[in-house]
Amino acid sequence: MTELKNDRFLRALLRQPVDATPVWMMRQAGRYLPEYRATRSRAGSFMGLCTNPELACEVTLQPLERYQFDAAILFSDILTIPDAMGLGLYFEEGEGPKFKQPVRSAEEIEKLDVIDPSGKLSYVTDAVSLIRRELNGSVPLIGFSGSPWTLATYMVEGGSSRDFPRIKTLAFNQPELLHRLLDVLAESVTLYLNAQIAAGAQAVQIFDTWGGALSHNAYQQFSLAYMKKIVAGLVAESEGRPVPVILFTKGGGQWLELIAESGCHCLGLDWTTHIGEARARVGDKVALQGNMDPAVLRAEPGRIEQQVGEILAQFGPGNGHVFNLGHGITPDIPPDRVAAFVNAVHDQSVTYHRN
Amino acid sequence: MTELKNDRFLRALLRQPVDATPVWMMRQAGRYLPEYRATRSRAGSFMGLCTNPELACEVTLQPLERYQFDAAILFSDILTIPDAMGLGLYFEEGEGPKFKQPVRSAEEIEKLDVIDPSGKLSYVTDAVSLIRRELNGSVPLIGFSGSPWTLATYMVEGGSSRDFPRIKTLAFNQPELLHRLLDVLAESVTLYLNAQIAAGAQAVQIFDTWGGALSHNAYQQFSLAYMKKIVAGLVAESEGRPVPVILFTKGGGQWLELIAESGCHCLGLDWTTHIGEARARVGDKVALQGNMDPAVLRAEPGRIEQQVGEILAQFGPGNGHVFNLGHGITPDIPPDRVAAFVNAVHDQSVTYHRN
Repeated sequence: MTELKNDRFLRALLRQPVDATPVWMMRQAGRYLPEYRATRSRAGSFMGLCTNPELACEVTLQPLERYQFDAAILFSDILTIPDAMGLGLYFEEGEGPKFKQPVRSAEEIEKLDVIDPSGKLSYVTDAVSLIRRELNGSVPLIGFSGSPWTLATYMVEGGSSRDFPRIKTLAFNQPELLHRLLDVLAESVTLYLNAQIAAGAQAVQIFDTWGGALSHNAYQQFSLAYMKKIVAGLVAESEGRPVPVILFTKGGGQWLELIAESGCHCLGLDWTTHIGEARARVGDKVALQGNMDPAVLRAEPGRIEQQVGEILAQFGPGNGHVFNLGHGITPDIPPDRVAAFVNAVHDQSVTYHRN
Repeated sequence: MTELKNDRFLRALLRQPVDATPVWMMRQAGRYLPEYRATRSRAGSFMGLCTNPELACEVTLQPLERYQFDAAILFSDILTIPDAMGLGLYFEEGEGPKFKQPVRSAEEIEKLDVIDPSGKLSYVTDAVSLIRRELNGSVPLIGFSGSPWTLATYMVEGGSSRDFPRIKTLAFNQPELLHRLLDVLAESVTLYLNAQIAAGAQAVQIFDTWGGALSHNAYQQFSLAYMKKIVAGLVAESEGRPVPVILFTKGGGQWLELIAESGCHCLGLDWTTHIGEARARVGDKVALQGNMDPAVLRAEPGRIEQQVGEILAQFGPGNGHVFNLGHGITPDIPPDRVAAFVNAVHDQSVTYHRN
């Protein structure tokens, strides 16, 4: 096993001292990079890219060639599990993900089985192994999955949604049926993330993109409860190190205390939360990841540096901060802005880690 | 002047005792009602309906014929001010509002003037006068406007947006230009709401639909600061009664303490906030309005009653609660569900107002 040369990211997740604040970026391997668009075009389709371990590895590593990121994240999609369940994931230009066979009726939900990741999802674990080999110990690799609630929204609605009419009707009128679906998903996600860890993922993140669409009580019942189950089912150590877990509920800023009780190591924050206030609320329990508005990357480099400085100052001195955006980078960002961002985090954060 | 027969709503906004929790519903005059769709079709277009005081009055009163709402709200659109500024508001089927002439450059922003509501917006004040006459003291009438930030998002983006790329670039790169736009809007909204009050509105609500898209700091600078200016500029009393002001920032649950310092009388809450926790945070300063997830209205009546009961219990006994949805009712709701909702609020709340 190769020794890890840069372990800032893993140390920050465990709230251990670091020399500078580690930084990575959600969707760092993505459409804002011309080299990504070239590989994507060779792959033929987005799912063609996800399901080809060599190409997935190639795009995972691209941003690390350009920028001093402190972690790599597996290139994949959050919807691989429902796709493996036979729902037929596809993408329409400019419309987001869709499913050919959404599940809505009791019959459709009851016939879903827990997914064995060594079967139809072996392209994911193959990619993880390959990426680990290619990284050669430079930075750690993050594995990930969508949360059960977030997966269920796409599976029931059939795609992206603004108001979530179908799944919310299910939640209110037939909660036991939705719980059955979420149970199957939570078990599948647990197996899936453990398989990624076994293949070499050194930390994992659960993306709860749509948890913030729920009320306070419904969030706990339909989203957080299942993320807790997953966290409890993950292997605690791999390769002699703890495997930290990051939970990211977009729009979950009001529920940080609840999420911090889940057993996870780190909370992902979107940009609506003041990271200093978040630290005061939960910072003795978990690390915090975030949280610059991705739109700041549209600004001139001087403004980006200033915004990075504000967030570092809000968090303040001490351990437990992983810098990131509050959501994924958008495709229209000029690549040089990302360099300004990453360098600003490293340069300006050193002062918060002295003594 | 006709005496007000039902003043529960106004009393609750001022945190005075009431016999039952008052209830109204955002978009209560709207597409879920067949009689609304009939009038809308006679008007020819949505803006045709807004700009015709007789028809606007007709649809404002329709929900009060069916349900025991404790307030009427002027039927209008949040984007009347930019339309009056010459931006050319129009609606495309299923796409939300758009502007023919968005404002983006310094030149376009600098030539905008404060709007005198007695000119191009007299159709609004005419509608207010007419509705007051027709209400005949049955329930109070709410006037409203979009917040400066929310109006600016549509004016700069040219319509609805998910990521707000143009206005956020403006906010980060040319903040002084955006402040100039927000200043003109804040002055215009102040005049507009005061004109509605002079015409007979007995309370006003500012809809900050997109404030929740901002970071903690940017929200204060670009949205809350201008709502504060408006609140400070509104007439405090009319017809010998205070005119309460409701601020509703969708997605603003993390900033309630800040909003409660604005001088407003009531905070509108979306459904992501636990109304009991909100009361503990700010309930000695302001009343609270909300906050059932509109999707609950898709559920069977028994489930609706249960959800109403949960929110009433979260708020608990005492004064200062106006029941509402956490956002507007959607067009697909069967009208009988609304009856179940309104009656549940009145029936179940009586017990919280005994002493």
